[in-house]
Amino acid sequence: MSDSSKPKCRIVVDAMGGDFAPRNAVLGAIDAFNSNKGFELFLVGIKDEIKKVITDNNLTFNDENIIHTTQIIEMGDTPTQAIKSKPDSSIVVGAKLVKEKKADAFVSAGNTGAMMAASTLIIGRIPGIGRPTIGTFMPNESGVTTVFDVGASVDSKPTHLFEYAVMGSIFVKEIYGIDNPKVGLLSVGEEDTKGNDVTLTAFQLLKKSQLNFVGNIEGRDVLKGSVHVVVCDGFVGNILLKFGEGFLSILKHLLRDYASKGLFNKLKVLLVKSTLKQMLKKFDYQEYGGVPLLGVNGISIIGHGSSSPLAIKNMVLRAKEMYDRDLVNKIENSIKNYSSIL
Amino acid sequence: MSDSSKPKCRIVVDAMGGDFAPRNAVLGAIDAFNSNKGFELFLVGIKDEIKKVITDNNLTFNDENIIHTTQIIEMGDTPTQAIKSKPDSSIVVGAKLVKEKKADAFVSAGNTGAMMAASTLIIGRIPGIGRPTIGTFMPNESGVTTVFDVGASVDSKPTHLFEYAVMGSIFVKEIYGIDNPKVGLLSVGEEDTKGNDVTLTAFQLLKKSQLNFVGNIEGRDVLKGSVHVVVCDGFVGNILLKFGEGFLSILKHLLRDYASKGLFNKLKVLLVKSTLKQMLKKFDYQEYGGVPLLGVNGISIIGHGSSSPLAIKNMVLRAKEMYDRDLVNKIENSIKNYSSIL
Repeated sequence: MSDSSKPKCRIVVDAMGGDFAPRNAVLGAIDAFNSNKGFELFLVGIKDEIKKVITDNNLTFNDENIIHTTQIIEMGDTPTQAIKSKPDSSIVVGAKLVKEKKADAFVSAGNTGAMMAASTLIIGRIPGIGRPTIGTFMPNESGVTTVFDVGASVDSKPTHLFEYAVMGSIFVKEIYGIDNPKVGLLSVGEEDTKGNDVTLTAFQLLKKSQLNFVGNIEGRDVLKGSVHVVVCDGFVGNILLKFGEGFLSILKHLLRDYASKGLFNKLKVLLVKSTLKQMLKKFDYQEYGGVPLLGVNGISIIGHGSSSPLAIKNMVLRAKEMYDRDLVNKIENSIKNYSSIL
Repeated sequence: MSDSSKPKCRIVVDAMGGDFAPRNAVLGAIDAFNSNKGFELFLVGIKDEIKKVITDNNLTFNDENIIHTTQIIEMGDTPTQAIKSKPDSSIVVGAKLVKEKKADAFVSAGNTGAMMAASTLIIGRIPGIGRPTIGTFMPNESGVTTVFDVGASVDSKPTHLFEYAVMGSIFVKEIYGIDNPKVGLLSVGEEDTKGNDVTLTAFQLLKKSQLNFVGNIEGRDVLKGSVHVVVCDGFVGNILLKFGEGFLSILKHLLRDYASKGLFNKLKVLLVKSTLKQMLKKFDYQEYGGVPLLGVNGISIIGHGSSSPLAIKNMVLRAKEMYDRDLVNKIENSIKNYSSIL
């Protein structure tokens, strides 16, 4: 997929990001690097700690590609405050490298809000994009549906929802190879007349576009796979995403509860457990390689705080793919074409 | 629980409402009546059809309590249009009986939108209530959480969310006997500062109230049971409700899919199925007796189109309970007390 005429992709990984940093970040990043030499890897963070992980795990990594920083943005830090008060943190330094075109992509499993703030404020938006969007992957009966937005921004205006649809469509086309992906607007009924003020206006904008807009979809359609891109305000998407996580936990709880009521139940649950586990593998976020933050003028991938080395590896490989597919430029060109209806 | 000084409760059941009308509606209503003689029951609909169900099932029912109507609002009819163009439909006639104080409660598993329109436009709102709300029940680790609103209205204003909280709290207290029920505002983060414009303002209103307001909750908390009443705009609540239904169907789909891959898988799934079924019984809406439409100046209960006789029976008994607990007056008095902050 690599275009030999393009300069080599440079990916920066936040070694200090995530609940198991620097271990998981370093192991995952180097694993990705060893499996695909088509990019240059930089690790940003406290050098001694990074080197210790490398040594402890008998790995080799070019010392010059470790960028030393002295500060750490903690998971509990207030995002915008932190990126101001901690200029020598791995998140701020990583974002600056992308801003200054010294790197093409930044990957972090650190403080989500700080990553979003750094990406939006330091790297900046793609010209023509009003608001960047964070997407997520939800399994469906036949594959995976993407949902934009799931938390980058609330109180989205109709034009923002339109932008999410454009960016989501490009992402799905370029990364999943789905031509003309179907786009659905999340609402409270399938009819054109159902929705709130914002979605009713967004519906009209989407109808005018060249996107493969199928109209409104309902909550139950999200997991049905009837569309490739679900578009919604970040307030709704975030609540949905976390509700889905809650659903998985209540299932686990019900299983435990059922098992506690006698030996026979316990045996049944043991059998059920492995079956369910196999089935629910689809819901495992690690497989999907982090959520892309689209609309930022550079590649930025945000991982779950509890990312495993495998999750980090997949995030790095996803960043490489986004670079190869020229996602940022494609979004810029596409949104430019819609300037007349926005 | 009945107050002997109160006049006998009069409940009207829409015999034509639901996918299996008049059969399920008539059987469920008469079953409720036979199990609790503390109320008077009226069946509204096409008399011959109602009587046929009664005869076919060897039941007895007072002929004078069957109110004959000639029109039927179908499931696909446009709500507000239908209640205007079909004045002799069971839904319009039932709502009018409550409006004219000839009945205390109206129960229907018919066209949800038409029931909502008839309740709001014909029966009318409780003085001081800006918008009625439809609630739903969601199972949680320890019992059941209620969610208001799940579809009565979109683009709710902060004062509407406040009203949902007041009405939901009274419902949970009176019907479930939970003193001082915990109220959570559905948002994208637990901190006071997280939310959209509407929830941020609603948060401040709720903080000033005497409700047991615990603050913002997130999507994952809905099923955790950390609060008794979840408050949200109907757009969000409706999407959440239908997403939950979708989650249950994808689980079933995954089971079928897994079972299709070999005999051993099939056997395992057979075992899993009964276990899951027992566990997921909590998710069965029939147990909960329909969703209450609160804020209407009379008792109105809306059932699922596919309501079984058991579901209808539980809806009727729920209506009786709401009458006994004087829910409508309690809501009116409570909202009056908050007039200074609204």
